[in-house]
Amino acid sequence: MRPVYFLSDFGLEDPYAGVVQAVLEERVPGVRVRHLAHALPPGDLRRATYALFEAVPYLPEGAVLLAVVDPGVGTGRRAIAAWGKRFYVGPDNGLFTLAWLLDPPERAFLLENLSPPRPRGVLPLPGLRPGEHTFHGRDRFAPAAAHLALGLPPEGLGPEVSVESLVRLPLALSPGPLGEVLTFDRFGNAITTLLSAPLGAWVEVAGRRVRVLRTFGEAEEGEALAYLGSAGLLEIAVNRGSAREALGLQEGMPVRLL
Amino acid sequence: MRPVYFLSDFGLEDPYAGVVQAVLEERVPGVRVRHLAHALPPGDLRRATYALFEAVPYLPEGAVLLAVVDPGVGTGRRAIAAWGKRFYVGPDNGLFTLAWLLDPPERAFLLENLSPPRPRGVLPLPGLRPGEHTFHGRDRFAPAAAHLALGLPPEGLGPEVSVESLVRLPLALSPGPLGEVLTFDRFGNAITTLLSAPLGAWVEVAGRRVRVLRTFGEAEEGEALAYLGSAGLLEIAVNRGSAREALGLQEGMPVRLL
Amino acid sequence: MRPVYFLSDFGLEDPYAGVVQAVLEERVPGVRVRHLAHALPPGDLRRATYALFEAVPYLPEGAVLLAVVDPGVGTGRRAIAAWGKRFYVGPDNGLFTLAWLLDPPERAFLLENLSPPRPRGVLPLPGLRPGEHTFHGRDRFAPAAAHLALGLPPEGLGPEVSVESLVRLPLALSPGPLGEVLTFDRFGNAITTLLSAPLGAWVEVAGRRVRVLRTFGEAEEGEALAYLGSAGLLEIAVNRGSAREALGLQEGMPVRLL
Repeated sequence: MRPVYFLSDFGLEDPYAGVVQAVLEERVPGVRVRHLAHALPPGDLRRATYALFEAVPYLPEGAVLLAVVDPGVGTGRRAIAAWGKRFYVGPDNGLFTLAWLLDPPERAFLLENLSPPRPRGVLPLPGLRPGEHTFHGRDRFAPAAAHLALGLPPEGLGPEVSVESLVRLPLALSPGPLGEVLTFDRFGNAITTLLSAPLGAWVEVAGRRVRVLRTFGEAEEGEALAYLGSAGLLEIAVNRGSAREALGLQEGMPVRLL
Repeated sequence: MRPVYFLSDFGLEDPYAGVVQAVLEERVPGVRVRHLAHALPPGDLRRATYALFEAVPYLPEGAVLLAVVDPGVGTGRRAIAAWGKRFYVGPDNGLFTLAWLLDPPERAFLLENLSPPRPRGVLPLPGLRPGEHTFHGRDRFAPAAAHLALGLPPEGLGPEVSVESLVRLPLALSPGPLGEVLTFDRFGNAITTLLSAPLGAWVEVAGRRVRVLRTFGEAEEGEALAYLGSAGLLEIAVNRGSAREALGLQEGMPVRLL
Repeated sequence: MRPVYFLSDFGLEDPYAGVVQAVLEERVPGVRVRHLAHALPPGDLRRATYALFEAVPYLPEGAVLLAVVDPGVGTGRRAIAAWGKRFYVGPDNGLFTLAWLLDPPERAFLLENLSPPRPRGVLPLPGLRPGEHTFHGRDRFAPAAAHLALGLPPEGLGPEVSVESLVRLPLALSPGPLGEVLTFDRFGNAITTLLSAPLGAWVEVAGRRVRVLRTFGEAEEGEALAYLGSAGLLEIAVNRGSAREALGLQEGMPVRLL
């Protein structure tokens, strides 16, 4: 039985993540479900793809990654499962772009054959039936993750598609000198697409020059710095502040190693 | 041993949900505690009753639902346990109104007999004693949920009361044509009290007419639509936006099927 | 195998808490990890030390408390493990000040010997290596918590240091008459450093006089009151409102029992 690592933008203001877990546990009794992050900014695919990139190297081989950040739910976007050393289940919207740089998919299947979970142990309320076009986390992705957690054959999911056809976000990680602001974390640190930078070098972003240091503590309080972040990407921060706010950074802004 | 599904407005800024889980696990070693939602807007009973309505059909029969959204803690409001096909533990403030449409209570007991958990493994700090009138999640509801999770007899909780005496919110689900905005979800979608609406029909809300579509993808980006939501209620959304903000919606606003 | 109770300011917008859990589970298969709170205000040591004070009496003896609120990560601040009746792992920045009033440390060790987790099951991406100076939750504290959860000898962590050398915040709990606003909870209630106050007494804060009542319900809606909180400290609240906002309270403000 494979563990399921679950990431979404469902938040904890609503019971959606809990309902998905209940569906997983109904279908795979005893399954280990772990929550990676559920308060991702709604629909933010850059933030989500970075979160998965950060997490994947620390998740066990064979794990099922269930990721639901899905601004296109109910459109023609495909629902897919793909796998390399781990299993990936979610919308085919580019969510896995960066994780797949580390663990490229070898096979992929559309999620078309599994039936959604049925309400159980409730009175029929005349006229009430759950809509099936908006909560694919519950109705489509959880059944697929359960199927894979049980080790059932992938052909049961739906037709196979080529891994080349899977959607990727237009993002590239680069040794420099040119990159961009990929996304931000909770603390307002900017994560860039640059893979590294020599200590003491300068980085230009938003019309400012920022020094590459080893760590926060080498900057004054309130001072901007760049450093090698925990996922291996160059980050830009303000010591004990928010670089996003203090430097007026935005996603996609160019970052240049000088 | 029955699993406990736990929902509250305690947030994750404070350790309250974790403390309640620790109390449950002390009293019921090995109990399975699942978190449905803890960031409900403080004291928001409409949001909470909807969350439970959304979740209940996917939770196993026999489960204990521990729900603590309790703006009246420390007032005369009763603390109760009630059950139909599942067990419900929480304040008697209407929190379970909608869930009980699906799983009506057959018996109910007041929570008056159980003792609160005692601090353990700590030095006595002169003058320090925990207050017992504000954190009923820890002191009253968790002991009751533990009691039921262990399968102990309900008479141990306190005196039985009639299920007719349990508090209900003044909310009705309706096939139409008239309903109201029940609450919102994280994405700013409005959940209404309407049970259904034919595809292609029009819905009037806040002086606007909105078309009933099958799903988001049939609306333009930024366009308002109505659709059958995942719990079976009609919802009003703006494709890739917040209907709450874009349309200026508020709880209780009338919604009319045209 | 000891359970791990985990508290941080990592939030749920990012996967950091999930990555730490994955590291713990890799090193201690089957370990019970419990989440106390992850949305603590970033870097807020007062809030964090109060959260641990609130939780500790309800956590089992022998538990490992992993706490990562670490505004000085990457500076010279020490990383430590210490224990009394429970084990404490985190930055040596005062985070445990209040918890240690209840469960004083008897021994303490620096975290210098353990190696950080290595990425596994991923392709080498040319030029990519994780930075090790910013995510001590993953690279230093999780390995130490795992070491202690396994019951391995403390000498494996690093050199022993005296418990007197451990950093404490300049906070004192007091029977009165003078105390201060310690911090706030999610609901905007102010937690003070006062250990108790007689019912009916008056408390002065921010130029206002507030009555000590038994509980919320004895105040009018919108009225300010003081009461003995769930951790045993005097709290100041506004019934169904936020005392923080309504009374303009701030951390450190003097509170006086009249």
